[in-house]
Amino acid sequence: MAKIIAINAGSSSLKFQLFEMPSEEVITKGLIERIGLDEAVFNITVNGEKIKETTDIPNHNVAVELLLNKLTDLGVIQSLNEIEGVGHRVVHGGEAFSDSVLITPEVLQKIDELSELAPLHNPANLTGIKSFQKVLPNVPAIAVFDTAFHQTMPEDSFLYSVPYEYYKNFGIRKYGFHGTSHKYVSERAAEMLGRPLDQLRLISCHLGNGASITAIQGGHSIDTSMGFTPLAGVTMGTRSGDIDPALIPYIMEKTNQTADEVLDVLNKKSGMLALSGFSSDLRDIELQASEGNERAELALNVFASRIHAYVGAYAARMSGVDAIIFTAGIGENSDTIRARVLNGLEFMGVYWDPALNSLRGDERFINYPHSPVKVMVIPTDEEVMIARDVVRLSN
Amino acid sequence: MAKIIAINAGSSSLKFQLFEMPSEEVITKGLIERIGLDEAVFNITVNGEKIKETTDIPNHNVAVELLLNKLTDLGVIQSLNEIEGVGHRVVHGGEAFSDSVLITPEVLQKIDELSELAPLHNPANLTGIKSFQKVLPNVPAIAVFDTAFHQTMPEDSFLYSVPYEYYKNFGIRKYGFHGTSHKYVSERAAEMLGRPLDQLRLISCHLGNGASITAIQGGHSIDTSMGFTPLAGVTMGTRSGDIDPALIPYIMEKTNQTADEVLDVLNKKSGMLALSGFSSDLRDIELQASEGNERAELALNVFASRIHAYVGAYAARMSGVDAIIFTAGIGENSDTIRARVLNGLEFMGVYWDPALNSLRGDERFINYPHSPVKVMVIPTDEEVMIARDVVRLSN
Repeated sequence: MAKIIAINAGSSSLKFQLFEMPSEEVITKGLIERIGLDEAVFNITVNGEKIKETTDIPNHNVAVELLLNKLTDLGVIQSLNEIEGVGHRVVHGGEAFSDSVLITPEVLQKIDELSELAPLHNPANLTGIKSFQKVLPNVPAIAVFDTAFHQTMPEDSFLYSVPYEYYKNFGIRKYGFHGTSHKYVSERAAEMLGRPLDQLRLISCHLGNGASITAIQGGHSIDTSMGFTPLAGVTMGTRSGDIDPALIPYIMEKTNQTADEVLDVLNKKSGMLALSGFSSDLRDIELQASEGNERAELALNVFASRIHAYVGAYAARMSGVDAIIFTAGIGENSDTIRARVLNGLEFMGVYWDPALNSLRGDERFINYPHSPVKVMVIPTDEEVMIARDVVRLSN
Repeated sequence: MAKIIAINAGSSSLKFQLFEMPSEEVITKGLIERIGLDEAVFNITVNGEKIKETTDIPNHNVAVELLLNKLTDLGVIQSLNEIEGVGHRVVHGGEAFSDSVLITPEVLQKIDELSELAPLHNPANLTGIKSFQKVLPNVPAIAVFDTAFHQTMPEDSFLYSVPYEYYKNFGIRKYGFHGTSHKYVSERAAEMLGRPLDQLRLISCHLGNGASITAIQGGHSIDTSMGFTPLAGVTMGTRSGDIDPALIPYIMEKTNQTADEVLDVLNKKSGMLALSGFSSDLRDIELQASEGNERAELALNVFASRIHAYVGAYAARMSGVDAIIFTAGIGENSDTIRARVLNGLEFMGVYWDPALNSLRGDERFINYPHSPVKVMVIPTDEEVMIARDVVRLSN
């Protein structure tokens, strides 16, 4: 028995989840928000009870100290010694990390170097790692990378058709993201199907505020819709997904913006927010669409049709597909998006059951029993993947 | 009986083809190159004999005069009066033109306005139109647009997920190109299949130095891989096709180039040229790949796999496909690219015959007889489409 904590540190936040391993029981979880800002908020759930406190948290060091003190104060653990491992989500592992890794000074330095590829995320992840090292210097810490699962992509998937020296000199290639989630649901899918993962061709649709589709063959990511950054691929909440690259200079000229400003528009003011004209939140959009708002309907159509096209493309990529998986906020909860994505895939053997699709529930199949291609809804669990990797790599 | 001339005017070139209509017999064709440069070249084929002359041609007016004089001098026609219509290829018709059109002063002005969307092409096309108007002022002239066929795309295909006012104010949307070619081969496919075009779902792969894939449902383009410009979509000879849009600011910073300079790299120094490292010409690349050059092999793999993925995506878009068509230089002539594109599509009913694929020939089927999805090679003929539209619209 060992207690393992999974950490996701953002620039002003710290998400945590404490596991009893190997049972994978969640002992507690929570979120510290507004670190370094006025009125930071500490949220924790203990024995089903949600506790929320507003306090001053000037930096991540203080946040981690507060968290660990709370765990003992609230009786969640008796002593810090019970925590036998810390797992940190790190966004970008570049080509250096194709698996999770025990954090050493060399690993820390590499993650720092990779900040160039993820300037918003890796520095925040690093801050979280260093804060835990201060308080728990002798506890093994593991880095779990969003990109690692996609390092199995073949060259013809990950290379862009741009000058080859851009790849060699600047690391310009497709990396892909949401890897921990795609990996988790692919492993669960194999268990639910009762078939060996290495014999399966899966298409995993991670649909949240960010969205990515991955082709998983024999347990390995062989292609994914996000790219060098999480901007690429399908339409998302506020991100454009793929556009004609020639649009950037054109928009720059027409709107008198710099390239970085246009990029900011494509990341934060595009996607379903731009199409609907009022929200990036799918629930708002679905509600308005059901009341006849045409722009809301348009946003749903574009979002679903781009995913639908990727499913077709990735089925072709793998010469067919055994199961299609929906996960993350929208994938797990929106039966209308799932229906729009799945409609018209009978030609490739997808027969889905509208009744099963509209049922609420956890892990489940939503295909008809006779469907050659299975369709599954699987709630993602990146935290348990982190905890498992801590156990695997800290011994 | 009427003689119709089809014209494709570039910035320093003029391509022509003279038809006898309605028989569609090609009376003569040729190309004037290096207009306005030193040593312009006039090429014409008469009765199967190729004639090539080097002379001074300072501008398109002179080129057109020269051409028409040659036609009478060489006895191709007895008098200019025999030419009853001129058809001009125009690249960009924007949202103004969803069909070919008789050229009026208003049409000329609109084509001029649309130069903003095609700054390299529309002005050259206009020059060609005006030169013919001078010499043949009373002969009806028709504009045939590369974009017109794609104007049937629904909103959820043509809209990018960017701020909606970019569409309203700046015309930012997917237009698509090669429309005349996609339309031609789709009509021929219906004839070859002996089925009404309005009941067919076709995927047309126009693969030349530029390449685009189109989903054609009931005779209408419903989606296409090129976008706001011909840069988007699949990897091409020198064009990158789709990339993560975030790469543009990154490449700008890393290489100290402006957005326009990066765009130039993406248009002229990317694609198979960049991947292979030595050529944008598929024949060179295929030769080197056959001799074990890994980068050449990579270029072929990337090119074919991007097309393969579009075939899957567009089959999904149309809930299945009745026939896949290959056309243009590579599509008509490269059996290895066709094979790589078609491999692994059995899951969607594509059974192609390697023996038929490797045979040389003109229009033909290359699927096994029992294949639910037919596969066809159809040489494109944009010129005859132009001539047909002249006949249709000039009466």
